[in-house]
Amino acid sequence: MELLNKLNWRYAAKAMNGETVAEEKIERILEAARLAPTSSGLQPFEIFVIKNQEIKEKIRPVAWNQSVITDCSHLLVFAAWDTYTEDRINYMFDLTNDIRGFKNEGWENYRQKLLSFYPQQDAEVNFNHAAKQAYIAFSQAITAAAFEGVDATPLEGFEPDAVDEILGLRDKGLRSAVLLPIGYRKEENDWLVNLVKVRKPMEELVTVID
Amino acid sequence: MELLNKLNWRYAAKAMNGETVAEEKIERILEAARLAPTSSGLQPFEIFVIKNQEIKEKIRPVAWNQSVITDCSHLLVFAAWDTYTEDRINYMFDLTNDIRGFKNEGWENYRQKLLSFYPQQDAEVNFNHAAKQAYIAFSQAITAAAFEGVDATPLEGFEPDAVDEILGLRDKGLRSAVLLPIGYRKEENDWLVNLVKVRKPMEELVTVID
Repeated sequence: MELLNKLNWRYAAKAMNGETVAEEKIERILEAARLAPTSSGLQPFEIFVIKNQEIKEKIRPVAWNQSVITDCSHLLVFAAWDTYTEDRINYMFDLTNDIRGFKNEGWENYRQKLLSFYPQQDAEVNFNHAAKQAYIAFSQAITAAAFEGVDATPLEGFEPDAVDEILGLRDKGLRSAVLLPIGYRKEENDWLVNLVKVRKPMEELVTVID
Repeated sequence: MELLNKLNWRYAAKAMNGETVAEEKIERILEAARLAPTSSGLQPFEIFVIKNQEIKEKIRPVAWNQSVITDCSHLLVFAAWDTYTEDRINYMFDLTNDIRGFKNEGWENYRQKLLSFYPQQDAEVNFNHAAKQAYIAFSQAITAAAFEGVDATPLEGFEPDAVDEILGLRDKGLRSAVLLPIGYRKEENDWLVNLVKVRKPMEELVTVID
């Protein structure tokens, strides 16, 4: 399967060379993230695409000083909703009705169910739930980058509060969840590039119940 | 991009027809999940592949009675580690050393860093972190199913404690995170199959900082 070839090709580049990735490649990577399925279709996250070098320089020290932060072409920040609100839920249900051109009783009942549940729930629980949805999109972006033949480094090693501060995310009701620098590997500086990919054997990962 | 075609093709089937998916397709879907990147490469989850109809029948009532639970071919349960332990961390570092055939000082220092951090952290925080990693694999499995031309229904609507009980997950140090029934759509019973896919427009999802 073509997908498995791409997933075997990709790795988390530990050094990038500063080369710019073409905008049409970035657009397709973002489109893959946009198409990701999310719980109840709420897409409870936003993506910040940082091309500005000064902002990257500010983020690097709060991301374990990892060089890919500044040597990538585009730094994607996946920021999840800090909580679920009535407005946010209504936006997606209204958008669905607009796009599909009709209201449906079952769908409206489902809206009420979510409205009676999420906004009353603890914000931290809601954020954790939203962040998981962001990870689905994050994963699809990683895969899409592989299809584009560009490197992408999944990156959790950063101080979320500091990144929130730099990007002003809290004022937007968002919290940084995970980063994805996109660019081109710099092989001579990358300790990982020539090492074999390590994964648990299938029998350690999977249990079949038949 | 081929990937975008597949992501546009897929949707969350709401009814399946009970047809069996070929084992080689399931194997490639699981391989995509196995290849997913995870934080520090720990792969902190397992996947239970339920073919047994009695077990599916037990899970259905604790999963909002959704028909895809019993009418799918293979029900994938992504179960995350309940916490990070020394043994679990050491397993992955030892496996890495075994596969790569050498020890590296930087890598061993990183092992010590993780050992001094994760096991002391609150189990609930660790589980949430592990569950996010499971979502990366879950997302890759969804994409792989699309490449195989089979349907897969991302499914969070279930009672995790009840599924844990049915599968005996807690005794294994695992907690169910998310479900993925895999099978073939039953169009005549599926209210969603002919509705247009709804996603936020790109400008609502993405902010470019240049």
